[in-house]
Amino acid sequence: MDPAVTSATSVSASDVLAAQARLRKYLDVTPTHYAERFGCWLKLENLQRTGSYKVRGALNALLAARERGDDRRVITASAGNHAQGMAWAAYRLGIPAITVMPKTAPETKVAGVAHWGATVRLHGDTYDEAKAFAAELAEQNGFRLLSAFDDADVIAGQGTVGLEIAAAMNPDVVLVPIGGGGLASGVALALKSQGVRIIGAQVEGVDAMARALKGDRTPRDPAATLADGVRVKEAGFLTQRVLEGLLDDIVIVREAELRETLVRLALEEHVIAEGAGALALAAGKRIAGKRKCAVVSGGNLDAGVLATLLSEVRPRPPRKPRRRTQERLPLPAAKHSPLPAGLLPANDAPRPRLPPAAGNIRNEIPEEILA
Amino acid sequence: MDPAVTSATSVSASDVLAAQARLRKYLDVTPTHYAERFGCWLKLENLQRTGSYKVRGALNALLAARERGDDRRVITASAGNHAQGMAWAAYRLGIPAITVMPKTAPETKVAGVAHWGATVRLHGDTYDEAKAFAAELAEQNGFRLLSAFDDADVIAGQGTVGLEIAAAMNPDVVLVPIGGGGLASGVALALKSQGVRIIGAQVEGVDAMARALKGDRTPRDPAATLADGVRVKEAGFLTQRVLEGLLDDIVIVREAELRETLVRLALEEHVIAEGAGALALAAGKRIAGKRKCAVVSGGNLDAGVLATLLSEVRPRPPRKPRRRTQERLPLPAAKHSPLPAGLLPANDAPRPRLPPAAGNIRNEIPEEILA
Repeated sequence: MDPAVTSATSVSASDVLAAQARLRKYLDVTPTHYAERFGCWLKLENLQRTGSYKVRGALNALLAARERGDDRRVITASAGNHAQGMAWAAYRLGIPAITVMPKTAPETKVAGVAHWGATVRLHGDTYDEAKAFAAELAEQNGFRLLSAFDDADVIAGQGTVGLEIAAAMNPDVVLVPIGGGGLASGVALALKSQGVRIIGAQVEGVDAMARALKGDRTPRDPAATLADGVRVKEAGFLTQRVLEGLLDDIVIVREAELRETLVRLALEEHVIAEGAGALALAAGKRIAGKRKCAVVSGGNLDAGVLATLLSEVRPRPPRKPRRRTQERLPLPAAKHSPLPAGLLPANDAPRPRLPPAAGNIRNEIPEEILA
Repeated sequence: MDPAVTSATSVSASDVLAAQARLRKYLDVTPTHYAERFGCWLKLENLQRTGSYKVRGALNALLAARERGDDRRVITASAGNHAQGMAWAAYRLGIPAITVMPKTAPETKVAGVAHWGATVRLHGDTYDEAKAFAAELAEQNGFRLLSAFDDADVIAGQGTVGLEIAAAMNPDVVLVPIGGGGLASGVALALKSQGVRIIGAQVEGVDAMARALKGDRTPRDPAATLADGVRVKEAGFLTQRVLEGLLDDIVIVREAELRETLVRLALEEHVIAEGAGALALAAGKRIAGKRKCAVVSGGNLDAGVLATLLSEVRPRPPRKPRRRTQERLPLPAAKHSPLPAGLLPANDAPRPRLPPAAGNIRNEIPEEILA
């Protein structure tokens, strides 16, 4: 068992509900946005405090510890977002926090942690090296080592993302990025009993959880990826146990798909996602569903990286929408009365799919005004 | 009187309420997001269909015309977003639309119009030249010329932005960008009677409305600006009449402030605003208010422009938050009981401003673990 699992060795849907009650005072519900050209809802955790969902788990862990009377100082290792979430939560509660981040963490994430007054140590090149060092410090000093994902309080906190999705749009399938598995575990605990399919998304070469669920826990160095937030060598143990029972599938996304999705999100939806934040939506292309929701898990991307992607990646233009037939009633009836209720489809009712009309609009316009 | 004002020569708060009833079936409420580091709420119209609030006025104009039995074909001139909104609205209702845009309109906006199947004519270098040409075509063909701002239906539609803000966060001051004045007029009609201060934002050298309100209607070529969406030569007439009675002030923003605000929005809030979309927030820095809300009016920005801004503009780091004192109760009381309700400030209660503590967190951590 990972030494980080200190608070509990199991976690349930009721822990997620308890987390929601704790977090309500501190965090607003984030928006759920329908991305029309993707045909998918987006849970915008890039608009969450500190720019990612991670603040939920961190804050829940601090509040739950306080309820238990555990007043040890907290130390954590993180690829960046968990550290930022912890720093904000600690700032908000007026207690100190110590974070260890790999030297490869994006500048914006390191700056975010420092901004909220937490202590930052840069150590190692990966999350796993940072974690080993944090464990050492915890051991020496009697701190509470809080895993970024393999902790019941953290999982329960992340699960509140799922509760908010269900309250907003009644999904049939929810897609989540998987690194260590904390978000996926929490969301699955929140939604599986409501009959929602839960699909994980991983990047090729950074698929520790997909391998673990097939019985292969050999640690393997993760490939380089834009999705630094999910770049872990080893899946969580507690999260693996939860996902074994609740996860429907994992989609492995290619790096090029991830880049294209990130740029399309920026240009078509005006949403800035970090690499891991675009992962679930990228996986969504391969998954059928009438009411799909992808979690945009975070938005902390270095300015230079975004600038480069915007210059280099040229996404294909989105497919043109099918032509809609005129919704208007035959003229005499419509002419002087408002349209009868029920004729127009409600905003989120399934839209009828109609075959394209023979001509296009351009052809119906008088010859003389065409360019 | 501008020939574009064809539907009515006055507009009132009840027109805004009527527009809300019409649009409800078609458009979701957009999020209102608290931008912590700016100390300001943001009304995220960059997440609106077609990436700007303009779809509200366009759709309201088409629906209101249908109610009146006016079945003329609609032609419109637009710097880009009004045309996109019109194209989407016409697509959604299954009717044709014709748009004239200046040749200088951003690629992303021209592509957006074509995407929804509307006819696009590129003409002239400014909104005003495109408008003159659209007026000519309307005259020759008996089309309804729909102004991008100087129209009662359009103003009423844009005003629904104000109703949604008031429903979400009870503002004391709302900031809106001003080009022709349609959005500002609508929002002022919606909110002025609730005691909300309405502040307009314009860019230096693109201040037709500010001048018109001082009695100077001399047409002047607008300066080059990142905020193409508000770059008009002449303010509206109907909008001027509305704003004369309802607008509290106009802040003139410098181009450099606008660029910095746009980049900070992207990096700190993960929100992509176009130039005009960052204008109100940029003005917000100069306006006092306890519950300020700035309208992020749109997000349609060319990829190359955003990439350049991200590379060139280096915003100053945000000011560090003040240190919070520990919220914890004295230990014996807190140790085994949950925190009493009421001790923690609610999410949107005003936070106490405390003087910084003598030391910082770093100093409280044991010597041996500091880098």
